[in-house]
Amino acid sequence: MRFHESIHGVYFDDLDALQILHNAKYLLLFERTIGSFWTRAMGWGGVLSESDSPDRYHLVRTNEIEYLRPVTGIGEVRVRIWVAKLGRSSLTFAFRILPMDEDVDHARGRRVVVCVDPQARTPVPWSDAFRQRVTPYLLADGA
Amino acid sequence: MRFHESIHGVYFDDLDALQILHNAKYLLLFERTIGSFWTRAMGWGGVLSESDSPDRYHLVRTNEIEYLRPVTGIGEVRVRIWVAKLGRSSLTFAFRILPMDEDVDHARGRRVVVCVDPQARTPVPWSDAFRQRVTPYLLADGA
Amino acid sequence: MRFHESIHGVYFDDLDALQILHNAKYLLLFERTIGSFWTRAMGWGGVLSESDSPDRYHLVRTNEIEYLRPVTGIGEVRVRIWVAKLGRSSLTFAFRILPMDEDVDHARGRRVVVCVDPQARTPVPWSDAFRQRVTPYLLADGA
Amino acid sequence: MRFHESIHGVYFDDLDALQILHNAKYLLLFERTIGSFWTRAMGWGGVLSESDSPDRYHLVRTNEIEYLRPVTGIGEVRVRIWVAKLGRSSLTFAFRILPMDEDVDHARGRRVVVCVDPQARTPVPWSDAFRQRVTPYLLADGA
Repeated sequence: MRFHESIHGVYFDDLDALQILHNAKYLLLFERTIGSFWTRAMGWGGVLSESDSPDRYHLVRTNEIEYLRPVTGIGEVRVRIWVAKLGRSSLTFAFRILPMDEDVDHARGRRVVVCVDPQARTPVPWSDAFRQRVTPYLLADGA
Repeated sequence: MRFHESIHGVYFDDLDALQILHNAKYLLLFERTIGSFWTRAMGWGGVLSESDSPDRYHLVRTNEIEYLRPVTGIGEVRVRIWVAKLGRSSLTFAFRILPMDEDVDHARGRRVVVCVDPQARTPVPWSDAFRQRVTPYLLADGA
Repeated sequence: MRFHESIHGVYFDDLDALQILHNAKYLLLFERTIGSFWTRAMGWGGVLSESDSPDRYHLVRTNEIEYLRPVTGIGEVRVRIWVAKLGRSSLTFAFRILPMDEDVDHARGRRVVVCVDPQARTPVPWSDAFRQRVTPYLLADGA
Repeated sequence: MRFHESIHGVYFDDLDALQILHNAKYLLLFERTIGSFWTRAMGWGGVLSESDSPDRYHLVRTNEIEYLRPVTGIGEVRVRIWVAKLGRSSLTFAFRILPMDEDVDHARGRRVVVCVDPQARTPVPWSDAFRQRVTPYLLADGA
């Protein structure tokens, strides 16, 4: 029962004209944390190739973000993710974006991904190996 | 009772390694359409300045997107938005992303924005002028 | 002897904290104009596929930009490109970014691309068909 | 006589359809390294404000990049920067983008910035304090 956290820089080009982190950038911070989660839990990295696990072919089905406290100026934030739900061919990630030094939320959100057949793009079940490696990060009650 | 639609290019740098429009880019297409809506409905453009209408100071509160059919390759899409709800100091935009030649959805979603005091960043009501200009785009049942 | 010009929106998310177009975005405007040039001159669009002309596989070798006058606030700009040089396996694009209503430069620059073998990524010559279609845009003296 | 180096992730959203780092992203990696250089050398961070050192108001005058070896797939790269030239009101940064484990170049380039008066946007000289702190990073012969 654990979460995955990574630290991300907030750079000048991420700020908007109000000098706060632009709302669309949160989605990238979330996605990049999911990327480092896949590397840690599944060993996925480098380029996509045909020898990859079929689980690696999944599409984003939904994204939801609630913005609670603006990230102001240049600096660093923590992004914490966990698995909120693991379905037969879907998986729901939940996330929080936090400052480096306090347990409050800049934002909270969710993403649903669906495992698909690479050609037909229709849902297919996750493999057993995948389920085994991902299950430890399942935190139905949040983190 | 009307919606606002704009056409956006999908460029090479918008595609991901699967050659589909990257999920975070949908948020930018939605936002840019909201930008052109503000120009049309409110005349807002150029730089933010202190002589601006206070309504122009609003923050994004939530973003929700459901991805229904990938946008594949380079080309153009239509983004249609309307006002799903107009509150005292909040406003909900709804959107659909559509191909140029068919009435099907690549994606659907919503954004809630909240009018705030520029310094305190606490909610303040929309002005009457704002309500009058935005009301024609209120389409509770969708578009 | 002609150039290719396209109009691009400058959106809120393109501005930096000084409310000017962020320097890295110029590169995207230039690239997107090159994309629409390829569509016009060569008919290239949609996804990359193995049946594509080999000329379509080319890599960016250099980018150079000189920033002359900031683009301030939301609006539109014109991007004008032409072919400054056509080599055996390389091609130099030149560009100017201009306001909608004046003949002055926001920026000027160049990009060199090199046609490569898709697997080996070593330079290969452009096809004759490519040379024929691109030659009308060769403007050694600028536009 | 020293350089400044930082490590940056290459994420899925940074890759293009050929699964290589998109050419415009190099400029962001370079810029973000300059940002961390300013924090280290000058203590600059957070939001821009009127109490900031006037040296902090500078504009990008040129960017030049030469792409030498594509960055393929997800991973990490090193970005090394140094000061190639320090003028009265201008400064030239040079950079190299390197893999984590080899001394070869993915890319090399330069950026010239010019210190300006925040209102008039005309060049003004760097302060003496600025010159003192930046001089140790002046490496005319490269790094």
